[in-house]
Amino acid sequence: MSDPFFTPVSGFDLPRFAGVPTFMRLPHVDFDHPRFSDVQVGLIGAPWDGGTTNRPGPRHGPRQLRDMSTMIRAQNGATGVRPFEALNCADLGDVAPNPADVMDSLKRMEAFYASVHAAGIRPLTGGGDHLCTLPILRALAKDGPVGMVHFDSHTDLFHSYFDGTMYTHGTPFRRAVEEGLLDPKRVVMIGIRGTAYDNEDRDFADSVGIRVIPIEEFHARGVDDVMVEAREIAGQGATYVSYDIDFVDPAFAPGTGTPEVGGPNSFQALQVVRALQGLNIIGADLVEVSPPFDPSGATAYLGASIMFELLCVMAR
Amino acid sequence: MSDPFFTPVSGFDLPRFAGVPTFMRLPHVDFDHPRFSDVQVGLIGAPWDGGTTNRPGPRHGPRQLRDMSTMIRAQNGATGVRPFEALNCADLGDVAPNPADVMDSLKRMEAFYASVHAAGIRPLTGGGDHLCTLPILRALAKDGPVGMVHFDSHTDLFHSYFDGTMYTHGTPFRRAVEEGLLDPKRVVMIGIRGTAYDNEDRDFADSVGIRVIPIEEFHARGVDDVMVEAREIAGQGATYVSYDIDFVDPAFAPGTGTPEVGGPNSFQALQVVRALQGLNIIGADLVEVSPPFDPSGATAYLGASIMFELLCVMAR
Amino acid sequence: MSDPFFTPVSGFDLPRFAGVPTFMRLPHVDFDHPRFSDVQVGLIGAPWDGGTTNRPGPRHGPRQLRDMSTMIRAQNGATGVRPFEALNCADLGDVAPNPADVMDSLKRMEAFYASVHAAGIRPLTGGGDHLCTLPILRALAKDGPVGMVHFDSHTDLFHSYFDGTMYTHGTPFRRAVEEGLLDPKRVVMIGIRGTAYDNEDRDFADSVGIRVIPIEEFHARGVDDVMVEAREIAGQGATYVSYDIDFVDPAFAPGTGTPEVGGPNSFQALQVVRALQGLNIIGADLVEVSPPFDPSGATAYLGASIMFELLCVMAR
Amino acid sequence: MSDPFFTPVSGFDLPRFAGVPTFMRLPHVDFDHPRFSDVQVGLIGAPWDGGTTNRPGPRHGPRQLRDMSTMIRAQNGATGVRPFEALNCADLGDVAPNPADVMDSLKRMEAFYASVHAAGIRPLTGGGDHLCTLPILRALAKDGPVGMVHFDSHTDLFHSYFDGTMYTHGTPFRRAVEEGLLDPKRVVMIGIRGTAYDNEDRDFADSVGIRVIPIEEFHARGVDDVMVEAREIAGQGATYVSYDIDFVDPAFAPGTGTPEVGGPNSFQALQVVRALQGLNIIGADLVEVSPPFDPSGATAYLGASIMFELLCVMAR
Amino acid sequence: MSDPFFTPVSGFDLPRFAGVPTFMRLPHVDFDHPRFSDVQVGLIGAPWDGGTTNRPGPRHGPRQLRDMSTMIRAQNGATGVRPFEALNCADLGDVAPNPADVMDSLKRMEAFYASVHAAGIRPLTGGGDHLCTLPILRALAKDGPVGMVHFDSHTDLFHSYFDGTMYTHGTPFRRAVEEGLLDPKRVVMIGIRGTAYDNEDRDFADSVGIRVIPIEEFHARGVDDVMVEAREIAGQGATYVSYDIDFVDPAFAPGTGTPEVGGPNSFQALQVVRALQGLNIIGADLVEVSPPFDPSGATAYLGASIMFELLCVMAR
Amino acid sequence: MSDPFFTPVSGFDLPRFAGVPTFMRLPHVDFDHPRFSDVQVGLIGAPWDGGTTNRPGPRHGPRQLRDMSTMIRAQNGATGVRPFEALNCADLGDVAPNPADVMDSLKRMEAFYASVHAAGIRPLTGGGDHLCTLPILRALAKDGPVGMVHFDSHTDLFHSYFDGTMYTHGTPFRRAVEEGLLDPKRVVMIGIRGTAYDNEDRDFADSVGIRVIPIEEFHARGVDDVMVEAREIAGQGATYVSYDIDFVDPAFAPGTGTPEVGGPNSFQALQVVRALQGLNIIGADLVEVSPPFDPSGATAYLGASIMFELLCVMAR
Repeated sequence: MSDPFFTPVSGFDLPRFAGVPTFMRLPHVDFDHPRFSDVQVGLIGAPWDGGTTNRPGPRHGPRQLRDMSTMIRAQNGATGVRPFEALNCADLGDVAPNPADVMDSLKRMEAFYASVHAAGIRPLTGGGDHLCTLPILRALAKDGPVGMVHFDSHTDLFHSYFDGTMYTHGTPFRRAVEEGLLDPKRVVMIGIRGTAYDNEDRDFADSVGIRVIPIEEFHARGVDDVMVEAREIAGQGATYVSYDIDFVDPAFAPGTGTPEVGGPNSFQALQVVRALQGLNIIGADLVEVSPPFDPSGATAYLGASIMFELLCVMAR
Repeated sequence: MSDPFFTPVSGFDLPRFAGVPTFMRLPHVDFDHPRFSDVQVGLIGAPWDGGTTNRPGPRHGPRQLRDMSTMIRAQNGATGVRPFEALNCADLGDVAPNPADVMDSLKRMEAFYASVHAAGIRPLTGGGDHLCTLPILRALAKDGPVGMVHFDSHTDLFHSYFDGTMYTHGTPFRRAVEEGLLDPKRVVMIGIRGTAYDNEDRDFADSVGIRVIPIEEFHARGVDDVMVEAREIAGQGATYVSYDIDFVDPAFAPGTGTPEVGGPNSFQALQVVRALQGLNIIGADLVEVSPPFDPSGATAYLGASIMFELLCVMAR
Repeated sequence: MSDPFFTPVSGFDLPRFAGVPTFMRLPHVDFDHPRFSDVQVGLIGAPWDGGTTNRPGPRHGPRQLRDMSTMIRAQNGATGVRPFEALNCADLGDVAPNPADVMDSLKRMEAFYASVHAAGIRPLTGGGDHLCTLPILRALAKDGPVGMVHFDSHTDLFHSYFDGTMYTHGTPFRRAVEEGLLDPKRVVMIGIRGTAYDNEDRDFADSVGIRVIPIEEFHARGVDDVMVEAREIAGQGATYVSYDIDFVDPAFAPGTGTPEVGGPNSFQALQVVRALQGLNIIGADLVEVSPPFDPSGATAYLGASIMFELLCVMAR
Repeated sequence: MSDPFFTPVSGFDLPRFAGVPTFMRLPHVDFDHPRFSDVQVGLIGAPWDGGTTNRPGPRHGPRQLRDMSTMIRAQNGATGVRPFEALNCADLGDVAPNPADVMDSLKRMEAFYASVHAAGIRPLTGGGDHLCTLPILRALAKDGPVGMVHFDSHTDLFHSYFDGTMYTHGTPFRRAVEEGLLDPKRVVMIGIRGTAYDNEDRDFADSVGIRVIPIEEFHARGVDDVMVEAREIAGQGATYVSYDIDFVDPAFAPGTGTPEVGGPNSFQALQVVRALQGLNIIGADLVEVSPPFDPSGATAYLGASIMFELLCVMAR
Repeated sequence: MSDPFFTPVSGFDLPRFAGVPTFMRLPHVDFDHPRFSDVQVGLIGAPWDGGTTNRPGPRHGPRQLRDMSTMIRAQNGATGVRPFEALNCADLGDVAPNPADVMDSLKRMEAFYASVHAAGIRPLTGGGDHLCTLPILRALAKDGPVGMVHFDSHTDLFHSYFDGTMYTHGTPFRRAVEEGLLDPKRVVMIGIRGTAYDNEDRDFADSVGIRVIPIEEFHARGVDDVMVEAREIAGQGATYVSYDIDFVDPAFAPGTGTPEVGGPNSFQALQVVRALQGLNIIGADLVEVSPPFDPSGATAYLGASIMFELLCVMAR
Repeated sequence: MSDPFFTPVSGFDLPRFAGVPTFMRLPHVDFDHPRFSDVQVGLIGAPWDGGTTNRPGPRHGPRQLRDMSTMIRAQNGATGVRPFEALNCADLGDVAPNPADVMDSLKRMEAFYASVHAAGIRPLTGGGDHLCTLPILRALAKDGPVGMVHFDSHTDLFHSYFDGTMYTHGTPFRRAVEEGLLDPKRVVMIGIRGTAYDNEDRDFADSVGIRVIPIEEFHARGVDDVMVEAREIAGQGATYVSYDIDFVDPAFAPGTGTPEVGGPNSFQALQVVRALQGLNIIGADLVEVSPPFDPSGATAYLGASIMFELLCVMAR
């Protein structure tokens, strides 16, 4: 049933620590590969942190995510889904940013994702700082605004930093709303917490109709109840899923640049994704994995596990 | 409304990784600074571990707490409190212990805190091993015994170590009760756990009326219920808050010398402080952060987050 | 009441970081020691990872477990049990495997444990990869199949790896059932999770009557309810307890070779052992501690804490 | 003779791990401080890595340099120089870059150093990636090109990266020559090594008369002989010293983003600075310390030791 | 002149931290790839440590070597050689060992290298423990014994371990001499040091005519003199180069399982390879890189630098 | 010839990572062991850092030294000496200090070493901060002052710290000279370097006739020449050897509290000990190994290698 070309190498054949590390041991298929047109979901690295205002590192995220993702097996232990049989998945390699030029990088990333989108491939990105989601949305929302389920400890809805710097990892969704890429009424942000500069981002969210669920509410209501609401907000329209690894508590995901204590544990980190089942997911990302802050790779392993869960809900 | 001098530098002006690191980017105000008399809450480092009987390191705690505290922003995300506008806060620098002489150090620390207290400044200390709380209490409880809310995995109520050594980080509260610094009926110890030598400390607590809430009871009852009782015990009298970072589970706070597994998570670590709202807090500390056991600074970041929550309940 | 020879050194006499590190500071008693015949529970290291198909390291587990176990005190803080007074416990040293020969190692380990068993000593092992449990069971189950309570994120019930390799850390319990060492109807496996190759192991469990409790069920039902069932399954017959440290979530136990996210926290990790009270435990192990993946020793400290809890339920 | 205000705190008074960490425990004097006009050498942090094309991290360099520099005492053990008595030294704080905008950052840094230069203060900078030397030179070489002694494993003389990006940490000295800030005949680059893209940078050096001393020649001739030539090249004119920590072998300085193996050891790292005695040094920097690649701080400690040696040759 | 297909991706086009990591950013060409027959030097990973008697980890070596090798550029800075233009180089992927079966692994590795050899490709291997050199020699020395230049701190000439275990990483060259794969008169072992069991290995070397140059002699004579002799011993016949990373001092190469202090520095580590110029090298390896003992990757970076030097002497 | 009881376990029998770790796998013989009177050299741990004025950690040194020393084999590779056959060596365990009381600890340590000395056993100590050498000398120099060869980056000759604290790790040899334990004319201190407070220690050395060889002289003259002089100074009288691991450059020995850059490499670290051959060594120590600053154990491995060299010169 499944195409042997798109089947990951099994750990029973080649040990899981061996081999050139691609995402989940999938074939590496670049744009001029003969099987490119057969890909349905493309796993893509966005090695990028030019939008980072605090502690850099996410440019190294894709490589460590690939490395740790070779420990992922073929079947979801909780749901039984076997995504690599349901969909033709491939590693499309990394988009090439320009580490010393933010605006040039945004153009390069948008162009890459536009090609992916044009080929009918749904992207599943491993980032990279959160600014990378802006060019992805520019590529995917060409035909109209999309909904978004956003897991994060920050809203990333700020207007600007440092006297007018408009493009940082704290501003992508402000830009996306301004540019008409997101339908704010179909956007939900879950897990928001930590100290704040002020209420500017939350006021903006309120003014456009974005639903923000802070962590206190998340812990009080529980995963199931929160996710019922999240699915209702996203509805049946085209929906993007953006997952910042700092949504998870830093004990479980230390490898990130702007951690906020008091977050969900790793079981909840998976549960919230499983609860997306049934949405119309046009693409997803897992961003802000920063290897310098977690040389052990534990954060990337959790990140790869979340990417696998995302793939499973995209597969059904 | 707030005094510009006492306003921390914003991360929107100067990136949060930049600048000489003071506690929460507050001004450094030492005893002979012209604005010293205007300070209401003084953040103080106690770089000290001469009382440590097991694994040393807390002498490095204040520096790492300062470093990580520069990631704290101006507003409490959960409660909305903006403590730096409500109170004049400043970094008073470090008390100078004598690392090779315990008794001399106790004198030096008491004298420092007596000066702070005399100036009408409430101290918020970043330690340091737990023995530092004894000279702080000697300075603050000059006019009579105070109550205490104590978060810890150990009671620190032992009589002595090594054939008669009376001053270690396992004995400060035994001494404080003996010296009349604490009113044991107004003392509650929360989170006690781990293997024990024997029942000596618990028997002493019972004999003087200190309430000990072991971790099993904490997990069974939940934060809200436990903290109602804690507030009742402390009452409306002058109350000191002493928070040993090993109260928190070592997965969330590995950087400490005597960890005990099975503790609260980081969300609960913040919740218990928020629940102190309304008490009459005359001073507080966050102790036993030991950087050698957590070079990443994650423990210190949690510690700084707890210090911010302490400041917020002192501010309202 | 207790034999002074079998009393661990107290941290009040010799600091806990000092001394040649034996398990829990117990006397080192090898086979030809004059007190060998008086030992009731023998703590044994199995420095072994020749069965590891993925990331090695558990051969270093026993040494780090010994090191961290010197922080364990005499009394269980939660239950009050003082196991070293209830039982004569000793460190029997390490079984000597052959790191370059799996089959030779299995023989060496079986012979060692057969001697321990013949002396009437119940073994409490610190491993080591999970394949070491097979030779232990061969030694202990000579007179008939035993029951088993198994904490793990994997079933370790696979038939073979790499085209017919029958002895790996993924196969010990398949072999044990085939060899009649385990009574599958009296075996319960708790905490199973993570991505799967396929259903082969679970199908085998079903076919022989092993009860598998996946982590989703564990989290939904809670520790108490699950452990009531576990005790019923094990019953009153001779029961072995095998505890793979990867049962615990990797945030709490990063030092292991095949982590799976979404597991229990450290409090639950202790609770499940305390709930074994009343079973007829003929031996136990704590395996798969891999120091290269956690140089800090935090995993080993949790492991030593679990071994102490195992000792306490063996003592009552 | 020396001004008490400008005397660092002694470790005999306050332990060296204590206190708010400024460079070498000097007073923190910002632009509006009353003693600013008395400063002769200003130690400045440049928390910057926006020009980094490979592995980021130097933005965190100044803080770790300050931290480790508190271990520096008052007197040079080899030469007997006591720089803090010879010169009024102070920590001027950090220049504030804009982490998400390279061109804005260059302007901010130039303005900061222009103010320092205008006040007659010689700057000693702790970086930061090597692009920061360009705005420093723009500020210092306003009146004409200066000479430079440059320790590095790379020439940093490339024309551009990524299809025309002109401002990266691989291009500052190409720009500086083009802008007339450096007199190439008075520039010597020492320690160059590692794999190369091609000969473009070396050809440019040859074309303008920059002397490049590769590491093979350095090791063959020895420190003394090489430094005689270096002093001759720099001559008696105004000279800037730029020291990239990757000049030193990565075993001694692992904390840097673009290490090249085969470099000098730490004794040679100090010797080359001592050999600058007698030059007319108008400013100096120690750049590319990247804490994420050396959490232990060993690299920063070497960097602080080099900064102290630079200060000593500026003092005589 | 050079074939674009075999040209590594430049860091000027795609940042060096980006992309799926192959050895030196070369194309990944497996056995059934259309360009396989055009490969002249094949870079191969041997993810293997089944022969390790002490501390495991080299099975992870190839992946970390690939990761760090992406920092290698196109041209040798010291010699000017551009190996990727001189030879068609490709990453052939990893040979698949069986981590739980030594003998099976030896067969699998020999078969893999036999295919490589049959295709006329010279192998350059990144290991892996040193036992992997035995199956490589079995494949390459089919037509008669070859010479060998061997850099190491150990002779690896032992007869057996643990009562007769013949295949470990301490025995490969004893086996290779016994099997007629090596011409002992054309074998030189350089850098031998550390504590010894006894003289068995050295006596064997003497008895068959292998020249052993201990580290004391190496340091006393210097690289140049030693390498003149080494070239004379190897002569003009087919010669294999085997480079154990523990040849280098552990300060420069901490990531290895059996370090011995007192070794060469990293500059000498490169010099000895450059001095092989002119030999008839039929294959080479760099083995015993053990990432668990150096998570920073510094050892692997040195290892990749050595592999590049090996490639350069194979290219001329 | 050698006594089997005193023979370390071979790595050919039991893998070197296995077993309860004693120094060099020697038998653990405490004071009441039946073979105590047969011991000739006693390896002793001094788990102590109460005299540390800067960064603590050496209290953990002995355990890590024991751990890493299990990699030491039976024979000196450079000199051929087999010390365990020449002398009856044993691990005497740890002296028990009182971590919270300096003066009590000095008494405890002196008493322990007095017992060892009285039994005719020469002590070889693994420390521990350098203050531990004072009580050792008090025990060994009861009958008159002894000579000393001292390898260190500091003289440890200061009068006092912190307004009169006389017993710290910076003062032991000042006290030892004052107490008549050392004959200053027969004392040589090698490797002194780093920044200095002032000349007080060097002036004292000059005034009493201690020969100080700074690192610049050491590097200029070379090991052989320096050690000829050192042997002449020590002469044929009773001589103690005290080796502070910070003598070695921190790239080779990062795990220490007061590192000074620019020191000897690891080969020289061994050479200087081998050059002590022929002296009348009554005891020796290797101190200041601080595991928190080197979790990898590399420093302790070098330390254990140095202890083995010390043992070899004591054996001949």
